[in-house]
Amino acid sequence: MAYTKVIGILGGMGPAATLDLFEKIIEAAVKRGARRDQDHPEVVISSVPRTPDRTKAILGHGPSPEADLIRSARRLETAGADLIAIPCNSAHFFLEAIQNSVSIPILNMIELTVQHIVDNDPGSRKTGILATDGTIEARLYQDALDRARLEFLVPDPEHQRLVMDAIYGSAGVKENASSSAARIKMAGVAEHLIGRGAQCLIAGCTEIPLCLKSEKINVPIIDATLILANAAVDAAR
Amino acid sequence: MAYTKVIGILGGMGPAATLDLFEKIIEAAVKRGARRDQDHPEVVISSVPRTPDRTKAILGHGPSPEADLIRSARRLETAGADLIAIPCNSAHFFLEAIQNSVSIPILNMIELTVQHIVDNDPGSRKTGILATDGTIEARLYQDALDRARLEFLVPDPEHQRLVMDAIYGSAGVKENASSSAARIKMAGVAEHLIGRGAQCLIAGCTEIPLCLKSEKINVPIIDATLILANAAVDAAR
Repeated sequence: MAYTKVIGILGGMGPAATLDLFEKIIEAAVKRGARRDQDHPEVVISSVPRTPDRTKAILGHGPSPEADLIRSARRLETAGADLIAIPCNSAHFFLEAIQNSVSIPILNMIELTVQHIVDNDPGSRKTGILATDGTIEARLYQDALDRARLEFLVPDPEHQRLVMDAIYGSAGVKENASSSAARIKMAGVAEHLIGRGAQCLIAGCTEIPLCLKSEKINVPIIDATLILANAAVDAAR
Repeated sequence: MAYTKVIGILGGMGPAATLDLFEKIIEAAVKRGARRDQDHPEVVISSVPRTPDRTKAILGHGPSPEADLIRSARRLETAGADLIAIPCNSAHFFLEAIQNSVSIPILNMIELTVQHIVDNDPGSRKTGILATDGTIEARLYQDALDRARLEFLVPDPEHQRLVMDAIYGSAGVKENASSSAARIKMAGVAEHLIGRGAQCLIAGCTEIPLCLKSEKINVPIIDATLILANAAVDAAR
């Protein structure tokens, strides 16, 4: 149970997704035997919600978040973090630039998630991708799944708009983390992907686990945030 | 909605209480109109769960947490925090030493909580105190309530042992934040204080809101963590 490394969380994108990763890190430590405060790993969190929207930047519709991401990564390194986890899939578009700005390793949530599918289901499984326009447009998951020779599919444009609406819209997750409207929309997109042959779904935006509950979906949901939490705790030993 | 200051959270005592404060800060910003990530305040968290137990130190049964608390406060100041909130009531015993180590202000959860009672109930209300042995022994709440000329009572020794057991014991909150055994014990102590005349209860250990739910208690529960969250968000404007 002895953790020797400090986990850094580069967060704020949004705050609720950052909270979700922190909670999953605590739960991961409990699952690994933590019974007292002193059994838990040290964590430093930099939550910078003013970071410009990643999807807008990737699509060329807004300013780049890179300066804020780099500042936050350096703050974590200065604060003593030994590794960094970024609870925002779209932000991984900027991963190389962030990694080049610090000398501590940054966990790659996209690669970890695809590796998790490979490890847990070596057969070729068709994976549905639920993610923001930015993550889809940048092909973050598609390219990683391609490299792993896994089949995938993304929502059609109409359903992709529903994903964005469930995250960013009025009564979306970013406005209200427990929005029932967002839940209904995201479940509808999940059914759409399953109807088109998806055998598992990647919750590939850190806001999605907040509004997509596995009870009501008949295929496995791959929670990228949970995979990142487990990887961070294992890396901190 | 423009927040100009960075909130620092000096946490890890325990991690679940730190998570609870972070969640309440996010909720406080939503209540004040945050609709997008960019409407939320910037937060830096230093969660150092290895910090020696505060109660043990206050009672003279363990090493002092002071060095870890000071290191964590300085880390937050270096990281750019403009104010510090400490989600651990017992740690307030060391507040002067921590405050002397940094030049940014530290919110005093104990004083804020007593002031909240004064502001919301100017009449003399008898307050029951639920807190760790360390917080009770150090008279953190008793002295603050005395200064405000408010009556109070603490559990008898047998029930105080139940409080400690619900927090630290096997199946206590520090082991399992959603422990039903801890809930039953804490509700029993609440009833004990109400039976002895308490007209409101201070949840004066940050683990207590995790296991004392207001639905089942017929007097107001003053959640010190919630008061600290609201004060931090207001101070960050």
